[in-house]
Amino acid sequence: MANNKKIKIGIVGGTGYTGVELLRLLSVHPNATLTAITSRGEAGMPVADMFPSLRGYVDLAFTDPATANLGDCDVVFFATPHGVAMRQAEALLEAKVKVIDLAADFRLQDTAVFEKWYKMPHSCPAVLREAVYGIPELYREQIKSAQVIGNPGCYPTTVLLGLAPLLEQGLIDFSAPIVADSKSGVSGAGRKAEVATLFAEASDNMKAYGVSGHRHHPEIHAQLVQLAGNDVQFIFVPHLIPMIRGMLSTLYVKLSNNAKSADLQQLYEQRYQHERFVDVLPAGVLPETRSVRGSNQIRIALHQHAGTDYLTLVVVQDNLVKGAAGQAVQNMNIMFGLPETAGLEVVPLLP
Amino acid sequence: MANNKKIKIGIVGGTGYTGVELLRLLSVHPNATLTAITSRGEAGMPVADMFPSLRGYVDLAFTDPATANLGDCDVVFFATPHGVAMRQAEALLEAKVKVIDLAADFRLQDTAVFEKWYKMPHSCPAVLREAVYGIPELYREQIKSAQVIGNPGCYPTTVLLGLAPLLEQGLIDFSAPIVADSKSGVSGAGRKAEVATLFAEASDNMKAYGVSGHRHHPEIHAQLVQLAGNDVQFIFVPHLIPMIRGMLSTLYVKLSNNAKSADLQQLYEQRYQHERFVDVLPAGVLPETRSVRGSNQIRIALHQHAGTDYLTLVVVQDNLVKGAAGQAVQNMNIMFGLPETAGLEVVPLLP
Amino acid sequence: MANNKKIKIGIVGGTGYTGVELLRLLSVHPNATLTAITSRGEAGMPVADMFPSLRGYVDLAFTDPATANLGDCDVVFFATPHGVAMRQAEALLEAKVKVIDLAADFRLQDTAVFEKWYKMPHSCPAVLREAVYGIPELYREQIKSAQVIGNPGCYPTTVLLGLAPLLEQGLIDFSAPIVADSKSGVSGAGRKAEVATLFAEASDNMKAYGVSGHRHHPEIHAQLVQLAGNDVQFIFVPHLIPMIRGMLSTLYVKLSNNAKSADLQQLYEQRYQHERFVDVLPAGVLPETRSVRGSNQIRIALHQHAGTDYLTLVVVQDNLVKGAAGQAVQNMNIMFGLPETAGLEVVPLLP
Amino acid sequence: MANNKKIKIGIVGGTGYTGVELLRLLSVHPNATLTAITSRGEAGMPVADMFPSLRGYVDLAFTDPATANLGDCDVVFFATPHGVAMRQAEALLEAKVKVIDLAADFRLQDTAVFEKWYKMPHSCPAVLREAVYGIPELYREQIKSAQVIGNPGCYPTTVLLGLAPLLEQGLIDFSAPIVADSKSGVSGAGRKAEVATLFAEASDNMKAYGVSGHRHHPEIHAQLVQLAGNDVQFIFVPHLIPMIRGMLSTLYVKLSNNAKSADLQQLYEQRYQHERFVDVLPAGVLPETRSVRGSNQIRIALHQHAGTDYLTLVVVQDNLVKGAAGQAVQNMNIMFGLPETAGLEVVPLLP
Repeated sequence: MANNKKIKIGIVGGTGYTGVELLRLLSVHPNATLTAITSRGEAGMPVADMFPSLRGYVDLAFTDPATANLGDCDVVFFATPHGVAMRQAEALLEAKVKVIDLAADFRLQDTAVFEKWYKMPHSCPAVLREAVYGIPELYREQIKSAQVIGNPGCYPTTVLLGLAPLLEQGLIDFSAPIVADSKSGVSGAGRKAEVATLFAEASDNMKAYGVSGHRHHPEIHAQLVQLAGNDVQFIFVPHLIPMIRGMLSTLYVKLSNNAKSADLQQLYEQRYQHERFVDVLPAGVLPETRSVRGSNQIRIALHQHAGTDYLTLVVVQDNLVKGAAGQAVQNMNIMFGLPETAGLEVVPLLP
Repeated sequence: MANNKKIKIGIVGGTGYTGVELLRLLSVHPNATLTAITSRGEAGMPVADMFPSLRGYVDLAFTDPATANLGDCDVVFFATPHGVAMRQAEALLEAKVKVIDLAADFRLQDTAVFEKWYKMPHSCPAVLREAVYGIPELYREQIKSAQVIGNPGCYPTTVLLGLAPLLEQGLIDFSAPIVADSKSGVSGAGRKAEVATLFAEASDNMKAYGVSGHRHHPEIHAQLVQLAGNDVQFIFVPHLIPMIRGMLSTLYVKLSNNAKSADLQQLYEQRYQHERFVDVLPAGVLPETRSVRGSNQIRIALHQHAGTDYLTLVVVQDNLVKGAAGQAVQNMNIMFGLPETAGLEVVPLLP
Repeated sequence: MANNKKIKIGIVGGTGYTGVELLRLLSVHPNATLTAITSRGEAGMPVADMFPSLRGYVDLAFTDPATANLGDCDVVFFATPHGVAMRQAEALLEAKVKVIDLAADFRLQDTAVFEKWYKMPHSCPAVLREAVYGIPELYREQIKSAQVIGNPGCYPTTVLLGLAPLLEQGLIDFSAPIVADSKSGVSGAGRKAEVATLFAEASDNMKAYGVSGHRHHPEIHAQLVQLAGNDVQFIFVPHLIPMIRGMLSTLYVKLSNNAKSADLQQLYEQRYQHERFVDVLPAGVLPETRSVRGSNQIRIALHQHAGTDYLTLVVVQDNLVKGAAGQAVQNMNIMFGLPETAGLEVVPLLP
Repeated sequence: MANNKKIKIGIVGGTGYTGVELLRLLSVHPNATLTAITSRGEAGMPVADMFPSLRGYVDLAFTDPATANLGDCDVVFFATPHGVAMRQAEALLEAKVKVIDLAADFRLQDTAVFEKWYKMPHSCPAVLREAVYGIPELYREQIKSAQVIGNPGCYPTTVLLGLAPLLEQGLIDFSAPIVADSKSGVSGAGRKAEVATLFAEASDNMKAYGVSGHRHHPEIHAQLVQLAGNDVQFIFVPHLIPMIRGMLSTLYVKLSNNAKSADLQQLYEQRYQHERFVDVLPAGVLPETRSVRGSNQIRIALHQHAGTDYLTLVVVQDNLVKGAAGQAVQNMNIMFGLPETAGLEVVPLLP
């Protein structure tokens, strides 16, 4: 019976925020056994010494990537900087180990675009071609049989799930650009020692950044084109917000003429009615980021501006869960035939 | 089998922070069925409309306390202001319903002290006499057979679990006062509309408060006397810290002569070795509040000051969990013969 | 000599955030003498008892509005709820006292619009007609001789100063709506006891609000129409951000054909080169809110999106200073022939 | 006339928080002219490019320490890591330049203690011997004629000004240790790229640290001994609080017998009645850190615990102002015969 199945898990790069978040979710996942957690810098240190929140839940120590026997795992998650997974994926696949990369190595099918934005050549285009972009609500069938998942960026998840119902039904007028004004908590910048994300710099403060070019722009753009079936103008302005977790994207789209007679609220509710992790809010209700804190939920609200052809969508998620580790676990569940919600029935932490 | 048992739960006063925290924990508790959640002011409103974090987890609406059939419950939690539980406890007990009060009605056995600090007469001293003070690590046996629990205040839990091993072994020199310098996140003040706890007042700011008299002083004092077997001078200074959840108490005690030859680190580790929710940190490690965020864990560190007879203890908990709703659920588990950790295996949320 | 002039100041409603901010600025203003500060609820209480930050700077006590002799002042600031200033303005003007209202009573020339959004009749349309909308960089000449100032809302100041150079030069294509995605710190909600702005609700959290209608929408719209000389579609989505002070508006506009050959960076730098409080950042630099914390500065950055006809503007201010009290003092300086920067040479507080 | 005097200022190491804070205060100081600001790493960069809050106030660029002509200055502030000032002080003094070191080089007269805690030999003990410990309220006379100031640490300023009146009058019973439970905002850790002070680590979180030994312990201890005239047991537990600025020390002392008949409130008020920057709060009032945000003020409250011989003091300051740069400017004012408050009449920023 599926519920007794135990998946052997490897995590490469367990010292960052997506790493510890995978550990939070997988250490109590009913079908997961943590087998190896690697870190070049911290080999030998008990994981719970670095993250005391895991005391009593994770007994493993970090192992050196060179000696970790990842080939024994059923699946390996890469919670590493960009460029690591693509160097190791081929060997793991040969050993029948599935790969879920939380970095960007398997997100962009166009290697020229990858190389432009990530400043490195793509070292395994063959693996990339069979990789699936891991948003279950869009690509569930392909994920079921995938060996390699390019787990999406945090911003792209909000924009794409926010727009998919319109794109699928051809309800956007592409003569105007789609605008995504996105806001992220500071954990999105990772657990790297940098002045710009110090408490004394980022607290009681906010800013726009990456206006002239953010790596999630080409990722979102490629998926928008895919879903729209034609080219799309896309303006993306991310902002840094003084909160630990949480992401909110405000999306502005021009509706096509055939959208005007549509009941868009109903369209969204129907599109996502069987999706456990996508919650379309009742008309008139707006989401706040804490309503998903610590959970894999994404919540969407719609508002049509009187006197205009424009629709505003407000989408929230926890950037470390649905925007990273939670979605990765959701993908794993699907790949291994487990209940999609296994290990993800976490009630958001409010307040 | 215990694990299939389903306890019918009533919650009186579900609109505050301890209420929503009970709902977070009990909505996914394997042995709990939420039966009624009352609110005088919000009767009829779906609970998840007030707390969108509970969408998909709690389908109930608030019911009016006057019409809620709490007599059908197995246990009723009072997440109400002080003075409510004592008016309803007697009738519930007659209906064979157990009572867990998260307010102060059943914490202080001395009704004169209660009346002095809470400015109201105690209306059911008979029930009070059989009530058990609900810290399982101190009073587990009594809790097993208790019908009424006075669930402890948040500050007292940190101070008492921090000092119990010393008190039980007679290792404190009472010629000096015990000093508790305690720090609490703002959620400890509750979900009441007040200027002093507005974001723009409490953020990027801290203060001491209640120096001349805080209601947890007599509660802690009474328990210290109980555990010490003699009178105790106790100085308590609480502080308000700009964080949502989290409590840290720094305790300063003078050691008695017989403590000087004792291995206090070992004493603490042994005292709590079978306590799932009390974590004695290794010597030299200090806890931070986020290491318990959202969990029922309490963590304790010891430090002996060279050249003095003084010991410092640093104790952290999540004020809404081990300091309130989590401890209440732990008490419920014990009262109903469930595994003590049922519904409480929540990994702390870090970052 | 102007620099020795002392203006007698009255403040009606000194207990809110704009009130204490006026006191912070005016208590050390070289040309101001605080004469009366009224509060119905707090009459008799020394102002510095309520706001200890003012100990040593403000010796006055709150006086009852009924007994305060405001007619002796040279100028009275209203830091009150909407609807108060319009009841008292006429009498003050007759007593030759100038009026600066920080609420909305004198911002909207169309009383029907005022009444729709503020749910009260306008009681002195005659005074309203001579009132000047107090953005010095747009209406300095009128302010010089004004007796009554409608001090602008915080959001409008960012949007209007952000767009004025384009509007004045006819560089916007009005076939697309102007979109203002604005973000405000929590102090913008005022010092009112409300659950939604409690620390434990608003911290580590963000949300959009007022999407279906915010009172600053008609205010901004009226000014945009005024500056554009024709009707304008305007979409406004405000967001609440977990910071005390600070406001950032991200503005998306479609450029007209004649804008394409223009050097917009240069246009902005020239338009504001003599404006001490408007800082156009160098091309490629984006502002953060803390760079203006506590100061009357507003900073603007421009970014043109390659491959589109769209321009993004990012505008920051301190919502309580340039967005409220600072701009009010700037208006006062102009009205009384003082140096426009008097009392406003405050270096932003960073970090 | 003193008020027209212009002091030529050099700042070595202007890229940290004490550096930018000196610039905030000195750029608008009526008697200061910024002459040189050095930074090894950032030579050539305009200061206002690094700190946009200074745009319009500071036109200088960072210069390389090797080429900066500091010998032309009247005074040089060292806002550098420990160990820099002592290498340069001698040459500056020979050039008749006064030195104010904000690091620890000139705080500890006992070089053995310095070397133990700072892990480096002291390279100029002769200069150290003539250095004055820069708390004006304790050592004003010596500061007047000092050539070198060891500007105190942030924690020491709160503890020493909090205890001085008792120590001076011999009102402490030294049979019990003095306990300082201190809390600091995160800016106290400086502007260094470190994981532990990232926003996502330090926000919504708190901890004790340095319990087994903090560098301010010997500094405070040496001064306590100096003021007491005998040895003192001193327990010091610092805590990290999720706020940018602000420091609060809660001090617990045992009173001597002769203290029992004294009016301690009156003693404190008299001791500090002529001190512009020390504010003794009325009996029963407790301070909050934001009441001094951005200002050089320190506020002190006293509370005597009924039934004990213990007194609690609560002391707040802005760690970057009275705890660092503001006190340094106060020392400069005294050294140059300026009004002690020159450039320091900054109203705290609240909210």
